[in-house]
Amino acid sequence: MYAELFMKKYAIAIDLGGTNLKGGIISNDGYISLYRLIPSEIGKGPDRILKNLIQTIGTLLENARAEQKIIDGIGVATPGIIDPDFGGLTGGAENLPGWKNTPFMRIIHSKFNIPVFAHNDVTATVLAEHRHGAGKGKKNIVLASFGTGIGGGIIIDGKLYGGAAGYAGEIGHLVASFGGETCACGVKGCWEAYASLGGIVRTVRKYLTDTKHLKDTLKKSPIFTTIREAEDADIPRLLFDAARENDRSALEIVDEIGQYTAVGVGSLINILNPELFVIGGGIAEAGAIYLGAIKKHLPNWTLKDSLESVEVVLAKLGYTAGLIGASILVFENINRLNTESS
Amino acid sequence: MYAELFMKKYAIAIDLGGTNLKGGIISNDGYISLYRLIPSEIGKGPDRILKNLIQTIGTLLENARAEQKIIDGIGVATPGIIDPDFGGLTGGAENLPGWKNTPFMRIIHSKFNIPVFAHNDVTATVLAEHRHGAGKGKKNIVLASFGTGIGGGIIIDGKLYGGAAGYAGEIGHLVASFGGETCACGVKGCWEAYASLGGIVRTVRKYLTDTKHLKDTLKKSPIFTTIREAEDADIPRLLFDAARENDRSALEIVDEIGQYTAVGVGSLINILNPELFVIGGGIAEAGAIYLGAIKKHLPNWTLKDSLESVEVVLAKLGYTAGLIGASILVFENINRLNTESS
Repeated sequence: MYAELFMKKYAIAIDLGGTNLKGGIISNDGYISLYRLIPSEIGKGPDRILKNLIQTIGTLLENARAEQKIIDGIGVATPGIIDPDFGGLTGGAENLPGWKNTPFMRIIHSKFNIPVFAHNDVTATVLAEHRHGAGKGKKNIVLASFGTGIGGGIIIDGKLYGGAAGYAGEIGHLVASFGGETCACGVKGCWEAYASLGGIVRTVRKYLTDTKHLKDTLKKSPIFTTIREAEDADIPRLLFDAARENDRSALEIVDEIGQYTAVGVGSLINILNPELFVIGGGIAEAGAIYLGAIKKHLPNWTLKDSLESVEVVLAKLGYTAGLIGASILVFENINRLNTESS
Repeated sequence: MYAELFMKKYAIAIDLGGTNLKGGIISNDGYISLYRLIPSEIGKGPDRILKNLIQTIGTLLENARAEQKIIDGIGVATPGIIDPDFGGLTGGAENLPGWKNTPFMRIIHSKFNIPVFAHNDVTATVLAEHRHGAGKGKKNIVLASFGTGIGGGIIIDGKLYGGAAGYAGEIGHLVASFGGETCACGVKGCWEAYASLGGIVRTVRKYLTDTKHLKDTLKKSPIFTTIREAEDADIPRLLFDAARENDRSALEIVDEIGQYTAVGVGSLINILNPELFVIGGGIAEAGAIYLGAIKKHLPNWTLKDSLESVEVVLAKLGYTAGLIGASILVFENINRLNTESS
């Protein structure tokens, strides 16, 4: 028992999102011993984000010291592309305006003088699911994170696959319908334009506007008005709730969303023949009904042999995956700030 | 000099295609010292294919013996999926009717009693291009082979990537236009339905039938009639020849083919961020004009960062790539017949 106590390692982990900044003290077996959530205040610019980051880290460190936990390092998961030589973000965080070319790793390091690690948040998520979640023990995994965009993480032979320059996993920008709907990246027909939050909202609004295609059940259903007047971000939850209550129109819309999602999942299975495909991100919080709609359509878009050799499952770690992934960066020495190049 | 002579290793290599069966004696530095080509006679069934295989291997072995070359093993590249425990093909060779569930590795081994290796032909091609061709020294490569279908080979971290069950690389079946043209696999909208031989022929015939969209140049051009009456397999060559002679309609069709091809190449670059993308297969024999048409359209379908970190090049080894790849199986001990499981 004492040996176990001494062997336990701890990291400060941060998961920076568009809405919230999550922080935690996490042990090397993936347990969160302290958790804090504050608004990330993206709208107030990068200086405010940095201030919130440093304040959260400071508080967590104080707690760790009070509990005599020795901290191995600070791990940060954030949207965008991290360059450990530059010491921060070089770009790619379209949803966090102003959060680019920011050497936040250097700034954190100079403040606390503890090793700092950082990586893209979807990458951190796939690491977490591989080490402690749905992908434990698997060799080849693809994780798709469905939210504002579609992020992807690829594990090959048990290791993160980053590609030539760390950009691998941009699975949302596989073109699934060329000349089709316009994606946030400007291309017409990216999968993301159909199966991300924006794509789902577009599908739902198409049904709600074109009411002649709506089954009477949804028109008469109290959620009809609720969905029509809802904020975009709330629409998937309302839709899946209605479907769970067997609203026939909602079920039909969910089926169409399942189809759009399966097109890309199937293409990725054909290309990479993973043994596990993990469905994660905010939209996947809908759970079994979402997974069921995707799996129903997968045989239409996937080669038989590849489909037979893959399991398609929901992510297990939910909203803590990014945070746990950030701690893994520390424990496995991934993307450590290069202090020699400064 | 004597040391070099003694260190040189040799393999018998076979590349089984839908039209021809190629055989060779190949050294471990990738040089072909003897080359034979005979019709594979696919139409006459798997027994005839086997007979031709064995006869070719026999002749090559006799030659090797006459020249006192010691043969390390026999390597076979073939369409389809190889299982070294089963000792042959388990399926997947749609273009070679009857060529399935054939334990050809066992049959060859029992005949010659020399180690036997085999792998999918596109996989062999990417191995060859990586070790001796366009991809020498590169870590992460995608190779697309454009012919009757679109085959794919993926090298990750310098090693072949097969996925969970050896099916990885089915890049032709990424859905690029869902609900679009019907693919040989039955799915509507696979990339292969647009950018393989069949897709190219369809694009060309669309222009030729719908003559009001044809520029007068092509209508008046002598190749107009030639292309209209040509066999499918000859159409790409005739088209690219006409384009090379600056026929404006031919150039326009080539441009459209470049667009269809770039959609999938771009998607794969976004997903895998390879440092090298190799364009190979029969259609790539058109050379610079084909590569140019693809590269022109790539920026429309590829994320800027990923495009900046990839080189897109033509395959270097041409029609010998499969053969050289088959020899690499021997020299690198890849997919050896498991004689213990028989």
